[in-house]
Amino acid sequence: MAKIRGRKNSTKKEVIIEKASKLFQEKGFGAASMRDLAENVGVEAASLYNHIQSKSEILQAICFRVANEFISHLDAVEASQELTLKKIEMIIRFHIRMMMDQYEYVYISDHEWRHLPEPYLSNFLNQRRNYRKSLADLIGQGMERGEMKQIDPYVAVLTILSAISGIESWQRSRKHISAEILETNMVKYLIEGLKK
Amino acid sequence: MAKIRGRKNSTKKEVIIEKASKLFQEKGFGAASMRDLAENVGVEAASLYNHIQSKSEILQAICFRVANEFISHLDAVEASQELTLKKIEMIIRFHIRMMMDQYEYVYISDHEWRHLPEPYLSNFLNQRRNYRKSLADLIGQGMERGEMKQIDPYVAVLTILSAISGIESWQRSRKHISAEILETNMVKYLIEGLKK
Repeated sequence: MAKIRGRKNSTKKEVIIEKASKLFQEKGFGAASMRDLAENVGVEAASLYNHIQSKSEILQAICFRVANEFISHLDAVEASQELTLKKIEMIIRFHIRMMMDQYEYVYISDHEWRHLPEPYLSNFLNQRRNYRKSLADLIGQGMERGEMKQIDPYVAVLTILSAISGIESWQRSRKHISAEILETNMVKYLIEGLKK
Repeated sequence: MAKIRGRKNSTKKEVIIEKASKLFQEKGFGAASMRDLAENVGVEAASLYNHIQSKSEILQAICFRVANEFISHLDAVEASQELTLKKIEMIIRFHIRMMMDQYEYVYISDHEWRHLPEPYLSNFLNQRRNYRKSLADLIGQGMERGEMKQIDPYVAVLTILSAISGIESWQRSRKHISAEILETNMVKYLIEGLKK
């Protein structure tokens, strides 16, 4: 009995997080209220608290879920036997697809992490710093191996991640081109710029 | 006498716009009050109205000043006799320097234009659309002339402008590298990615 309720609860929690991700992306974490969220989920505000403790708990769940996805992917890529440039291409593609398929989650993790309470905030920022450092190290490695041009790795990481985050504006007005053309062309631009 | 007061007023107005640009960038246009602004300028809120009519007037001044700078530069570049790839490099460099030298102005023009009242909002968005279209046309031209790889021009513009707007995060923690290294390396990355 407890087990079934447990399963039921976690499904409900997932629904709440899903609705919250859309709400936080549209209104911003600060402006979105538990009342708004309850309305979107279709329950009374009070009953939300049977499933989650606070708005902050939802933000934590979203930010750390996104961070985990990126870190797990990076670990898998690093462990693979591909050439460095191919590894970087795999990472760029993964970032682009995350921006397309899990837009609200990635948006919140990119823009609303400032609202995380401690110790989550420091932990999140540490993970982000380490992630970017690993990317920069990978790019440095590609240069040492002669696969890539000499470009400052910090600037290369900044350029790649910023270019991809620009997919936000594509998400806001999707009329221009298809997801496939966007992915193919952005990968081409960013990889050709690195290739020796 | 009227002339001197006129000159004095326009100088004071400039000071107000300058202080407002920092305030709007830090707090956001919506959250920044005329009272905050008066405090930063060092005058009573009521006396601000001797120089400007509203918060909105300041936002208009900032957004259209930035737009004018970019449009004038683009016009000059288009009229020059350089190769297309060189023209694009000039435009990329100009954007990077604007992000470095006039950070608050560019930031507000990029993020706070949503608060412009009509007819300024439509006018601003039209100018922005035309500017991006001119850039895409220039890139298309470079491909036709065989100077550049085949990359979808819309994606190329999105990649370039988004990468440059990432300089925001460099502005927030300048410790990593110098402005010069950032400019040199980002130009190299973005131009090499286009070059045939």
